[in-house]
Parts: sequence; C-alpha cells; structure tokens
Amino acid sequence: MFESAEIGHAIDDREYDKQVPALREALLDVQYELKQQQRFQVIVLINGIEGAGKGETVKLLNEWMDPRLIEVRTFDRPSDEELAHPPAWRYWRQLPAKGRMGVFFGNWYSQMIQNRVHGKIKDAALDQAINDAERLEQMLCDEGALIFKFWFHLSRKQMKKRLKALEDDPLHSWRISPLDWQQSKTYNRFVRFGERVLRRTSRDYAPWHVIEGVDANYRSLAVGNILLEGLRAALAQPAQTVHQAMAPLGASLDKRNLLDALDLSLALDKDDYKQRLVEEQARLATLLRDKRMRRHALVAAFEGNDAAGKGGAIRRVCAALDPRQYHIVPIAAPSEDERVQPYLWRFWRQIPPRGQFTIFDRTWYGRVLVERVEGFCSQSDWMRAYGEINDFEEQLTDAGVIVVKFWLAIDQHTQLERFKAREKTPFKRYKITEDDWRNREKWPAYREAVGDMVDRTSTEIAPWTLIEANDKHWARVKVLRTLNDAIEAAFKRDK
Amino acid sequence: MFESAEIGHAIDDREYDKQVPALREALLDVQYELKQQQRFQVIVLINGIEGAGKGETVKLLNEWMDPRLIEVRTFDRPSDEELAHPPAWRYWRQLPAKGRMGVFFGNWYSQMIQNRVHGKIKDAALDQAINDAERLEQMLCDEGALIFKFWFHLSRKQMKKRLKALEDDPLHSWRISPLDWQQSKTYNRFVRFGERVLRRTSRDYAPWHVIEGVDANYRSLAVGNILLEGLRAALAQPAQTVHQAMAPLGASLDKRNLLDALDLSLALDKDDYKQRLVEEQARLATLLRDKRMRRHALVAAFEGNDAAGKGGAIRRVCAALDPRQYHIVPIAAPSEDERVQPYLWRFWRQIPPRGQFTIFDRTWYGRVLVERVEGFCSQSDWMRAYGEINDFEEQLTDAGVIVVKFWLAIDQHTQLERFKAREKTPFKRYKITEDDWRNREKWPAYREAVGDMVDRTSTEIAPWTLIEANDKHWARVKVLRTLNDAIEAAFKRDK
Repeated sequence: MFESAEIGHAIDDREYDKQVPALREALLDVQYELKQQQRFQVIVLINGIEGAGKGETVKLLNEWMDPRLIEVRTFDRPSDEELAHPPAWRYWRQLPAKGRMGVFFGNWYSQMIQNRVHGKIKDAALDQAINDAERLEQMLCDEGALIFKFWFHLSRKQMKKRLKALEDDPLHSWRISPLDWQQSKTYNRFVRFGERVLRRTSRDYAPWHVIEGVDANYRSLAVGNILLEGLRAALAQPAQTVHQAMAPLGASLDKRNLLDALDLSLALDKDDYKQRLVEEQARLATLLRDKRMRRHALVAAFEGNDAAGKGGAIRRVCAALDPRQYHIVPIAAPSEDERVQPYLWRFWRQIPPRGQFTIFDRTWYGRVLVERVEGFCSQSDWMRAYGEINDFEEQLTDAGVIVVKFWLAIDQHTQLERFKAREKTPFKRYKITEDDWRNREKWPAYREAVGDMVDRTSTEIAPWTLIEANDKHWARVKVLRTLNDAIEAAFKRDK
Repeated sequence: MFESAEIGHAIDDREYDKQVPALREALLDVQYELKQQQRFQVIVLINGIEGAGKGETVKLLNEWMDPRLIEVRTFDRPSDEELAHPPAWRYWRQLPAKGRMGVFFGNWYSQMIQNRVHGKIKDAALDQAINDAERLEQMLCDEGALIFKFWFHLSRKQMKKRLKALEDDPLHSWRISPLDWQQSKTYNRFVRFGERVLRRTSRDYAPWHVIEGVDANYRSLAVGNILLEGLRAALAQPAQTVHQAMAPLGASLDKRNLLDALDLSLALDKDDYKQRLVEEQARLATLLRDKRMRRHALVAAFEGNDAAGKGGAIRRVCAALDPRQYHIVPIAAPSEDERVQPYLWRFWRQIPPRGQFTIFDRTWYGRVLVERVEGFCSQSDWMRAYGEINDFEEQLTDAGVIVVKFWLAIDQHTQLERFKAREKTPFKRYKITEDDWRNREKWPAYREAVGDMVDRTSTEIAPWTLIEANDKHWARVKVLRTLNDAIEAAFKRDK
C-alpha cells in the first residue's frame, strides 16, 4: 500500500508559494472555529519512515496555525509514574481538551511497530495491540474526537539518501540517533509491519493518510489540505443533540432482571455481624500489606440505590486500614475541565498506581445509569458505553489492577424508611436532597438500567457483585468478604 | 517546649466514650458545612515522634468524619517526575480543593527535620527550609486555606516502650522499619531540631499543636477538639467580599513610571530584521539543544498591552524550534477546577520538568494586572501577590528553571491602529473582542499597574524585560535576543 507514496510527486516553489497563503488563512480560520465551538478535540498521529519529514511538517503546521492551540507530545521512555499504571494512562493524561489540537509523536502505533520490528513482541501481540488501538480510537471518535493518522513514507533508496544528507548537516546531525541508523537496516521489516498495522487500522472514522515524504512542498500541502478538509467537514456537521433517551434495550424486554433473583431478606444479627466484620477487616488489612500487592493495584467500584448504604459500607472497608493505604474518590457531576474530555477521562485520572487502593463512590457506570435514565447522553452514547467500559476494565486488569464492582440493592420500602430517617437526623440532613426524591419516582427506569448494566458488564475479569443491602450488617460483611476473595484470587493467578 | 507533652495526661474509657458521640457529630457537621461553603480547603500536617500515634489518630479521624472528603497523602521518595521539578511541585499537585481536607504525612517539615537529623543538611539549610515553609503556609492561608499543624510527642522513655510494644504486636510489626529504630537512637537530635523548627514556624495563622501521644484517648479527643474549634471559627467568619479595588500603591504616586523611559520609536528595517531574526533563531535552536539544557528548564512569560504582538513574537520564538521542544500555555479566565485552588496552582501545574521549555501567553501576573484593575480580587490580595510571585520565581530559579519575563509595550495610538486593522482582516477578527475595547478605556489604570509590577517583581534572578513593541521587528528580535542571553548567562553560572 506504500507504492503510491514512492512515485516522486513534487511541487515547484512557485506553485507552492502561490498556494500557501490561502491554505494558511483557511487553516487559521478552522482552528479558531474549532476553539469557538469547543465541541470536539483534534488528535493528529504522526508516524512513518525516519527522515520522511515528520518533524518538519509538524513544525510547519505550528508556523501556519496558531501554536497556542496546538499541543505537541512525544511519548518516549515512560516515567516511573507511567510505568506503574496501565499502558494507556500516559495517552489519557495528555489528551487535548475540546477546542484544541494534540499532535502525538511516538504514539501507540510507533510503540507497537518498533516493538515488533525489534522482535520484542510477536505477531499475536502485535494484533492484540492493533485491536487495543482500534478500540481506543473508535471510542475517542464516538466521543466526538477527530483523529488524523499520517504515515510519512520514503522508499528505501530515498531514505538512505535523506539520512545521509541529514548526517552531513550540522544543524540536524543531533537528531540522528544510533537507533535511527539501525532502522535503515531494518527498513524492510519496518515497512512490512507498518503495512500490516495500517491495513488493519484504516477506518472510515479514522483513516490513514500515506504522505509521500520526498518533496517538502508536496508533503506540506498534502498534510495541510487533508487537515483543512477534515476539519471543515467536522465543523460543518450539526451539533449533536442530546435527547430524552431511556429507550429500553431490545434484548432486555423479555428477560428476567437479575435483581429479581436477590433475596433482600438476608440479614446478620448484631453479634454475628461484629465478629465477622472484624474477621474480614483483619483479613483485608493483612492482604493489603502482603508483598504480592506490589504487583497489583486495587479498585473498588461502589454503585447502588440511593440510601442503600454505600457510604457506610465504604467506611467499614476503610476502618481496617491505615488511611495512607487508600484513597476515596467521590463522583458527582463532572467539572468544567472534565466536560471537555471523553467521559472516561476523569476515571483514568484517578486510577491508582501499582500497590495502591482506590475506592470509587459512584463510578464510570453513571453513563449507563443516571445519564441514560435522565437523558443526559444520547441512546447511542450509552449503548456503546457497555463495550467501552468492558474495554476499560480489561485494560486495568491486564495491567494487574484488581477491579471489584458492587451494586448495593435495597427495595423501595426500605429506601423510603431511610429517606425519612435522614430527614429527621440533623447530621444526616445533608445526605438527602430533592434529587433523591425525584430519582425515587424513576425507580422502574433505574431498575431496568441496572439490569442491563449487570447483564452486559459482568465479565469474568471484572464481575458485578450484587449486595443484598436491606440489612446493613449483611451488606457490609459481604462487601468486605468479596473484596478479600478477589484479592486472594488475584494472588493465586499470579503463580 | 515539649515538656508539657510529657506530663502523662490520660482519659479513662468511660469519660472517652461519653465525649466521643457529640464530638463525632459536631465534626461531621462542620465537615459538611465546609463542603457546602466551598470557601476554603483544610490542610492538616502530621509530624512528631515515631510511635506517638500519628497514623492511629488520622485513622480515627477518617472513621469519625466522612472519609470521602478527606485525602490522606504521604510524601515518601519522590518520583522521577517530581525530581525533575522544583521541590514544592509535589505538594502543589496534591493540594485538596476548596471544601475538602488534605492530611499530609511526610510533609515539608518531615523532610527538613529528617535531613537535618541525618546530617544531610546543616543549620543554614534548615533555616532556609524553615523560611520556605513559612512563606508557603502564609500564602496558602492568605488564599483562604486553613492549616493545622500537629506534633505528636513522646518522651524518650515513652517512645522506647511504645516501639517495643509495637514490635511484639504481629499486626503492627510491618510498620517498624530500620529507619524508625535508628530514630530511637537519634531521639535527642530529632527533638532538638524539631523544637527549633516548631519554635520558628508557629504563627497565628498556622500555630503548632503539640499533642501528648502516650494516651490514645487523650490524644484523640485533643486532636478532634482542636480541629472542631478551628473549623467552626473559620466557617463562622463572613465570606470575603471582593471589592472594586484599584487603589494606587502609596509608593508609586510620586515616582516615575518605568514605562516612561521606553523609547517606542526604536525600529528595525526589513532587511536588518530578517537577518537578525534568523541569527537569533539559530542561536536559540543551538542553545536549547545544548547538553547543558538538561540541567535547566526554560520558562518564557509574555505579558503586554492588548495588540502589542505577543502572539507574533511567540510564533517567531517557536519558528526556530522543533515543536517537540516547547509547549505553549495560553492563560484565560480560570476554569472551575482552577478556581477552587490558590491562584498560583494553575501555573505550578504547567511548570516544565528539566530539559523542557514552556511559553506562557499571559501569566501569573494577571493577579496584579487584570485582577487588580478590574477588582476581581481585593486590594490586600494583589498587594501580597508581589511577594508571593517573587517567592514563586525564586523557587523556580533555585531548581534550575530559567525564568524570562517580557512586557510588550505599545502606545495608545498604535493600539488603536491595530484594533482597527484586526476588525478588517477576516482571520484576525477572532483576536478582537469587546473586552479589548473596554480594557482600552482603562489605559491609565493598567499603565500604573504595570509600573508597580515591574518595580516590585523585577528581581535579579528573574528580571522584567520591557520590549518596545510599536515596531514589531524590533520587538521580536529583542525578545529572541533576551531569551538567548538569559540561557547563556545561566550556563555560565553553572560553572
């Protein structure tokens, strides 16, 4: 697929000088329009053959456009903080906000191709990396991001000539590292694996653009025009309207809701509770200070009906622990900085590094619960969220994060009793708001959303645990026991 | 000063159990009030003798209060990202937002005392660290933060007994590291230097509380009551009202404004400009890729009249560079996440690690410019900002960051011409807003603010460079030359 990029297109300087002013002005125009609309971000992935003009082209774009709205990132050697997190964390933390443009050198494609070329991974792992990249990009695009993927190409002969010229240029010689020269030897491998990657990852929503790198005028105009057209098309699309959603999932109409199977009468008497609670708390304390935890992080995700006792359960989990060992993240409506990012961004930010434990009080499942029921996002948004969330959790578990998810379930009668009690108790009055009463009216809608959620996101690697929470004692002990069992199971799998 | 903490106060369990329920409820109450008001954050510093109950007390506070609103942080060994930044960066990145509480173990006091005890620094460096801590705390408090400093104390005998008991307890033995035992040997030094630090850093706005650590009941109630009283007092204070400020600084009334001395007729003809620009750009490119840059970071701060040509100057700086070498941070009104932090927080976030170059398009000087003139902050706020900013920049330069600050000055007539031209040029129409016309009306007020700013923040380590910017050619070359000179001067100082 690279033959068409070895033809030797060239544009003479006169023609180039004629075209550039209008292109520049148009690019600036779309850039400011992007900023004004603040509806999506632009991600530009830069890949290809060494010496084919990657750096030069991006430098030129920064001259043509307003560099204050462009963030250029290079992903070289990961920092120790990055190494302690799942691999995608370093990309998430560098995502440009809506209205801005991020240019990624050394991105996921560079990593996978380099690894394959240098024999660090085999074909199966390359294909796995390809799949991961595709899912990431699809999700970003579904969230509105506009992705441009550029492959700068040179034939083997062209590359050798170019690298020789660069070597002789004192202003450029610093950029030719031994690795680059090595790459000249492995050109064939680089092209072979590059082609495999490009063929599999060129999609309508994020196609590859192969840029012939030999003539600077040609490649500059080509890249500029591709960006211009893509941006114009995206900016012209009507703003997505957010509808009152809550259409049921077809499949769930005639199937039993998993919540029906719960026996909410399960309970523990006080003595039994006290003893078991202390036992499980001691077990958790011991497990978390086990040396094997250094290879893992722990994420506990709490969801549940309002007044189901999430806060109380979280407190019982923490009671066993030194406060330096855990971090609680309460999730409310997203902040301004969070709203200009894909919805998973705010959770990626809070994923603990290896050895640490984070408790989410409400979670990324808000997308398929409150956002679905209240119509804060479109039906297609929450429908695709099931798969995106499964991907997200798979990335966590692949990196050694133990993910434990709880739904604390109570019945409507119990909720009413607890709401009333909260209104009466002075220091609990903060816990009950008008929203809570309003949500209660939507009980059936939430119930169906929970059923679908558990159905579609209870994976083997990150299963849901439904907690019968009418009895707080029972609920707290079951939460702790489940956490402990999950940690032990992870330790066993390590062997 | 620790004698009073070796008396042996004790509270029996019956008395303790009687007092705890009311204290808990009151603590929860103030905690929710803090969250509701979202007016300030609480920072709790935990220090003192090993084994005196630091961890246990914080654990208890997390049980008594709502742990979802508390962030416990331990500052152990810094990560490589932290090591590449000025020392305070790691604390800034962990500051709790307004409405929340942060508990800092291993904080700035722990670092300085440990370093002194183990002979890593001498008295002079300890005093320097004490001064740095004081300025940081004063600034945080002035920004509204409420700081509690606890020193948990034990006599030497009590400590030995306690450490022995902990060693024999299988549930606790994991926490006794060799270092802790070593500390038992160096108890005297620890107390001596601790006392020196406490004596010098106990201030009205952030006093030390020495807590007798031997009896758990006593120390728990003591800490709980101190927090409760402090929080209640702070919450009861009326919300700070922000006034229409713009009172002149007394000192500047009868002194010449430095801007008067500028010769705005300075200009370069086109040929001269082209040649010098290319020369300075090449010089910058060479300097930034010099190996000596690995020991430094570079920060270029751009301020100036509206339409003075900041954007154009920044573009000429970048034109010389690979876009992977710099990062431009445009500063606009603070976002929601930024508004719940001290005003310097958003700039600390963007300080580059060693080896990197960040350009701020408008800066932390907004505090003494737009915020002063428009009355977005109180007079006392912007008056104290001069000192705070000098401190901030000193911390940067101490860590090897080269700080170069530009004020681009034009006269009123030139500004008017440029505003008119912008309105006519299609792709520049985004650059001119109603705000710009409004700001223009306040020309004298801004002029005075700039005069005071330059006067008070042009330090030897981070001087202002006033740029005569009526002629864009002159301005751009002078900006580049100044940057280059500053880098060379830093390299020379390295020797």
